[in-house]
Amino acid sequence: MTDAMPDASSIAVDWGTTRLRAYLIDAEGAILDRHEGADGIMSVPVGGFPAMLARYIDGWLAADPTLPVVMAGMVGSRNGWAEAPYAPCPAAARDLAGRMITVVRADGGAATIIPGVAGVFDGAGDVMRGEETLVVGLDLEDGLACLPGTHAKWVLLRGGRIERFSTFMTGEIYAALSEHTILGRLATEPADTAGFARGLHASRSAGGPLHAAFAARANVLLETMAPAMVKPYLSGLLVGGEVAGALALYGDLEAVHVVATSGQAALYSQALAAANVEAIIVDPEAALLKGMARIASQGKPHMGSRS
Amino acid sequence: MTDAMPDASSIAVDWGTTRLRAYLIDAEGAILDRHEGADGIMSVPVGGFPAMLARYIDGWLAADPTLPVVMAGMVGSRNGWAEAPYAPCPAAARDLAGRMITVVRADGGAATIIPGVAGVFDGAGDVMRGEETLVVGLDLEDGLACLPGTHAKWVLLRGGRIERFSTFMTGEIYAALSEHTILGRLATEPADTAGFARGLHASRSAGGPLHAAFAARANVLLETMAPAMVKPYLSGLLVGGEVAGALALYGDLEAVHVVATSGQAALYSQALAAANVEAIIVDPEAALLKGMARIASQGKPHMGSRS
Repeated sequence: MTDAMPDASSIAVDWGTTRLRAYLIDAEGAILDRHEGADGIMSVPVGGFPAMLARYIDGWLAADPTLPVVMAGMVGSRNGWAEAPYAPCPAAARDLAGRMITVVRADGGAATIIPGVAGVFDGAGDVMRGEETLVVGLDLEDGLACLPGTHAKWVLLRGGRIERFSTFMTGEIYAALSEHTILGRLATEPADTAGFARGLHASRSAGGPLHAAFAARANVLLETMAPAMVKPYLSGLLVGGEVAGALALYGDLEAVHVVATSGQAALYSQALAAANVEAIIVDPEAALLKGMARIASQGKPHMGSRS
Repeated sequence: MTDAMPDASSIAVDWGTTRLRAYLIDAEGAILDRHEGADGIMSVPVGGFPAMLARYIDGWLAADPTLPVVMAGMVGSRNGWAEAPYAPCPAAARDLAGRMITVVRADGGAATIIPGVAGVFDGAGDVMRGEETLVVGLDLEDGLACLPGTHAKWVLLRGGRIERFSTFMTGEIYAALSEHTILGRLATEPADTAGFARGLHASRSAGGPLHAAFAARANVLLETMAPAMVKPYLSGLLVGGEVAGALALYGDLEAVHVVATSGQAALYSQALAAANVEAIIVDPEAALLKGMARIASQGKPHMGSRS
C-alpha cells in the first residue's frame, strides 16, 4: 500500500452493458479514486475482458497488488466475461457471496463476479443482474426497494433477504415509444414537464395504457395538449403504470426506498406520492459500493468457467 | 355508361396514409372494378392530389363522367388533400354526409371527402378518420364495433349513431416493441403462435403490461419460454390489454362486431372469447364500401378549402 491511498481496501467494478465504472474504495465503501468509460460488455471483443479490465485498474494494483477485485453487473452474464449463474430467491448477501465466481486477470491475479438473482413468481420467471448488489447495499431488513431504469426492478426484502422481485420494462418501452411512434414525432422540445402529472393521472384511466397513449396524439390534434407535453405525458403514463403494477403486486406500503439519482428520484417520488406512498431516496452509487463491500466481505468465490 | 360497367353507380376511394384503394361500385356497394397502390397521402407531393387521383379513376370517368366520387380516410386530414373538419359525437350517417367537403379534380369535376369524428370522453379527446365510414357500413343500430389496426378503434353505437369511441395504439406499439426493444432481438422465426394465448393470460396479471412484457425476456433466459413464442406473446399481451381496456370502458357485452380480415379476426376472437364475449366478424372492405354508399346517398357536401 502506498501513501497515495492509505485506506484502500478493495477495487469495485460495476460493468454493465454500456458502461464500465471502476472504484478504489475503503472498507466502508467510500470512494478514494475512480475510472469510468463507455467500455460496457457489448463493446468488448471476444477474449478482450482481461485486457479491458487492466486498463481501468492496473494503476491501483501497481500500488497494491493484494487489493481484492470484485465485479457486478452484466459482466457476469452469458454475454459477459464469464457466466455467474443466478442465485435463487430468497437470497441474502451470504448467498450471493457463496455463489461468486472467479476469473483470471491479465496479470494472473483473481477477480470475482457477484451473481445475479432469479426467481419464478406466480408462474412467471424474473431475473436481475447488478441490482441485487445495490439492494444488499441498502442494508434493509424488511421493505420494498424500487430501482428505476431501462428495466426497472422492485425488490421485496424480508429478514434481510431478497424475497421476491419484479422487473418493469419502463425505460426501454419509453425509449421505443418516444423514438419510434407517432408520439415522438408529435413531441416538441424543450419539454413541458407539467405533462408528467397529466400522464400520471391518465395511468389510472379505465381504458388502460394503450388507450391513454393515443390520447396524447388526439389531444394534440384537438389542441387540448401542447406538443411539448407529449414526452413528459408518456413518461408519467408509464411510471404511473409501473408504480400501480408494483403496488398491486406488493401491497400498499407506507414507504418505498427509491434507488435513483435526482431526476428520476423526483419523478418516482411524485408517482408514489400520487399513490400516498412515501419515497425514501437512496444514491445508487453509494448503494452499489456498500453492497459490493458487504458481499465481498462474506464469502469465498467459485472458479469461473472462462478466463 | 358503357357496356363494360352497366351497374356502376359511384367511385369510392379509400385514401390512407400509405395506400390508395379506388373502387368502382354499384348502388349496393358491390365491387365492379378496383385499382390499388402504395400512393398513400404521405407519398403525394404538395399539390399532387388531383393528378394522383386521376391516375386511379380516370379510366372509369372516361366511360361515365357523371359518376360521383367519394373519398374517405386520411385524404381528409391536415396532411391530406384538404382538411374535412371532424364531426362531433354523437354522429349519424346523415351528420357525416352533411359535413362532407368537396375538392376539385384534375378534370374539373368534383370529389367529396367524408369527415372524421372527434369527441371528448371522460376528459380526454379522441379522433378517428376513415373508421367512421366502416362503422356506418355495419348498419348497426346498437352495439359495439372493434376495428383492429395500427390505431385500433372501439366504437359504441346507440340509435344508429356513433355515440362514443376509443382508440388503442395496439398495432403501433406492437411494432415499436417488436422492432426496437430486446423482445424483438430475442424472438426467432417462424413464430410459435401458442405464445399468443400465453400473452393473453399474462395480460391479466397484477403487475400490468410493463412487467408482463419483461417476463418474456426473463422466461427466455430461464429457458421457460421458447424464443419463437416471444412475438406472439407480445401480441397476446397487447391485444389482451386492449380488450380488457375496451370492456372496462364499454361494459361486458355479449358480442362485439370485429371488423378485420382473417388473421386479426382470429386473434381478436380468441382474446374476446377469453373474456366470454362473442366476436361477430365483418369484412373491412365490404363495410367500407357499404358505409361510403350510405353516407354518399344522404347529403350534399360543402366546398373544401383546398383543391
